[in-house]
Amino acid sequence: MVRRTGLGIVETRYFTFADEKNPFELESGERLWPVTLAYETYGTLNADKSNALLILHALTGDAHAAGFHKGDKDPGWWDNMIGPGKAFDTDRYFVICSNVLGGCKGSTGPSSIDPKTGRPFGLTFPLISIKDMVSAQRILIDHFAIERLLAVAGGSMGGMQVLQWAVSYPERIDSAIPIASTAEHTPQQIAFNEVGRQAIMADSNWREGDYYGRSLPVKGLSVARMVGHITYMSDASMSDKFGRRYKDSKQPFKFSPEFEVEGYLQYRGDNFIKRFDPNSYLYITKAIDYFTLSNGKPLHGALKGVNAHFLIIAFTSDWLYPPYQSQQIAKACKLAGINATYCELRSTYGHDAFLVEADEQTYLISHFLKKVARGRA
Amino acid sequence: MVRRTGLGIVETRYFTFADEKNPFELESGERLWPVTLAYETYGTLNADKSNALLILHALTGDAHAAGFHKGDKDPGWWDNMIGPGKAFDTDRYFVICSNVLGGCKGSTGPSSIDPKTGRPFGLTFPLISIKDMVSAQRILIDHFAIERLLAVAGGSMGGMQVLQWAVSYPERIDSAIPIASTAEHTPQQIAFNEVGRQAIMADSNWREGDYYGRSLPVKGLSVARMVGHITYMSDASMSDKFGRRYKDSKQPFKFSPEFEVEGYLQYRGDNFIKRFDPNSYLYITKAIDYFTLSNGKPLHGALKGVNAHFLIIAFTSDWLYPPYQSQQIAKACKLAGINATYCELRSTYGHDAFLVEADEQTYLISHFLKKVARGRA
Repeated sequence: MVRRTGLGIVETRYFTFADEKNPFELESGERLWPVTLAYETYGTLNADKSNALLILHALTGDAHAAGFHKGDKDPGWWDNMIGPGKAFDTDRYFVICSNVLGGCKGSTGPSSIDPKTGRPFGLTFPLISIKDMVSAQRILIDHFAIERLLAVAGGSMGGMQVLQWAVSYPERIDSAIPIASTAEHTPQQIAFNEVGRQAIMADSNWREGDYYGRSLPVKGLSVARMVGHITYMSDASMSDKFGRRYKDSKQPFKFSPEFEVEGYLQYRGDNFIKRFDPNSYLYITKAIDYFTLSNGKPLHGALKGVNAHFLIIAFTSDWLYPPYQSQQIAKACKLAGINATYCELRSTYGHDAFLVEADEQTYLISHFLKKVARGRA
Repeated sequence: MVRRTGLGIVETRYFTFADEKNPFELESGERLWPVTLAYETYGTLNADKSNALLILHALTGDAHAAGFHKGDKDPGWWDNMIGPGKAFDTDRYFVICSNVLGGCKGSTGPSSIDPKTGRPFGLTFPLISIKDMVSAQRILIDHFAIERLLAVAGGSMGGMQVLQWAVSYPERIDSAIPIASTAEHTPQQIAFNEVGRQAIMADSNWREGDYYGRSLPVKGLSVARMVGHITYMSDASMSDKFGRRYKDSKQPFKFSPEFEVEGYLQYRGDNFIKRFDPNSYLYITKAIDYFTLSNGKPLHGALKGVNAHFLIIAFTSDWLYPPYQSQQIAKACKLAGINATYCELRSTYGHDAFLVEADEQTYLISHFLKKVARGRA
């Protein structure tokens, strides 16, 4: 069996900071300690620490962006984009990816043990924001003693973190690559997240978030995931994938899932509980909904003082984060005097395109990064 | 207080047919009796019974299409379209609207008493199809001794019934007005319905549909309704209605619904249980998903032999039943040699437009009906 050259076996690492005396202060004013971020790195940091990229993940992503964990059949979630000779070329760059604060894949979140009680936080975990995620990542970057990141890049919620990085720490980044993202959620986007939250909270096993060590709110999380999946795909990609085929070629007229699309959604929903904490789903979606770079003011005002170069990518069939939202970012960049390129890629994959359409993204991103690296040299 | 001239007080009536010896045979082969259809009529049937229109409702609609029920503040669901001088002009036409088979507003459905057990059917109710709904309506029309309907008209699932009428009983209708509808569900449309069904069935109060007389699956139905509401509106109409406003002008960072859009969806979801049976939601959405006029063959083939005139209406911002699906119907009509007009109306109201945009629809429909009536005379 021939495997395309890749990163091979990789490992997740953990970085912990903040204690009772020096807590991590959140945007809400609440204090949290200790804070652990799970992260992975690929490639080698050069001597002057000028070749570092930070990859930021989406709602249900994690630190494992590329390569294989020992014994795993599937690689990390952006393995088609990160590795030797790929878009984020590990022969050239040192790539860091960290799981977000509030997550459940090794970083501190609602399923972590509250040192004050010795029990999982559950709903006593403070609400966190995209800004808090980014503040915590900044401390991780300090830990690496990296002064400036060559680029921060990510799709979907990862793109929101990219934008927040540019605004919070303009002096720490050379470039920003927000993909299939937005500067703030519309009511429709909030509504889809709220449906997911309500589905989880409607599950009698949810018990106000206090389900750890008991039966999990499997059904609620599964429904939330199903809603998510519909929004990640497109009308066209679902039609291509499923058509109106039945799972069995039998006659219709049963209540169990019969259309292939139903079986697929149920399977994906049921599996999700194995890898994701329902409370993290609540906290992270809320952070996304609260995210607003402009806070009701013109967006270009928020970007004043940012001098990173921007590469903004959107996909034609993405109806969850439609191109017009990326165009708004591009326009605001121009008004703020930022060197920004907007690329709208044709794809039928909907929002998932940022995970799937590697070829064109690779072309755009590898050229962009080389240009940014040259400009810095 | 001046009230626009309307129908005034109206009443729902009930028509019952089929018994053990002469049961109503369903598309699945199962037999059902007795079958009751709730219906309302407005206007007067003329002597030669040539001025009758049949109005067909959407998923959560009912027989009460227009006028006021005694003591009610709100009129029927299409009151802006049905009445003296309106699109479906009760000064000219005799308008019938019947609640669908499988429904919960007076027609036989899963909440009806099974004469064999003396208890509500629940999930022992047979699965029903759009064709079954239409077959039952045909018996109601026979009951009125109406040989030919001047028109059958309806939006959304109502439009599917319109199409089924044209195919099942071409000799019984002069014209067909399917609005914001489709000849079959795509996987995306099936998926949205499946999420609603899964949300209901995930509710521990659902008990395999056997909840009558006990606690109702309120939370599950509420989540299903929330998903529905998002698909009925548009990105633009939600932004216009809610923006990113908070319900209270307080600081964010709470878990309860704070954005106006969240509060609205919860309110609408919670209220829905008062007027809709969760099992009916399961049965009717399944009927919609199974509906396929073409059954994998070219659509115009299914329309062969239909000689009704068609007026097909779609709305630009309707992303649940996008204009391309109405265009497919129009194209198939043309290929089948049917006299068909397709009108795509500009609106930001999304799928809800068929309930909201009365002015342009009135113009189109009243002219169309006059033309059809003249052609018949």
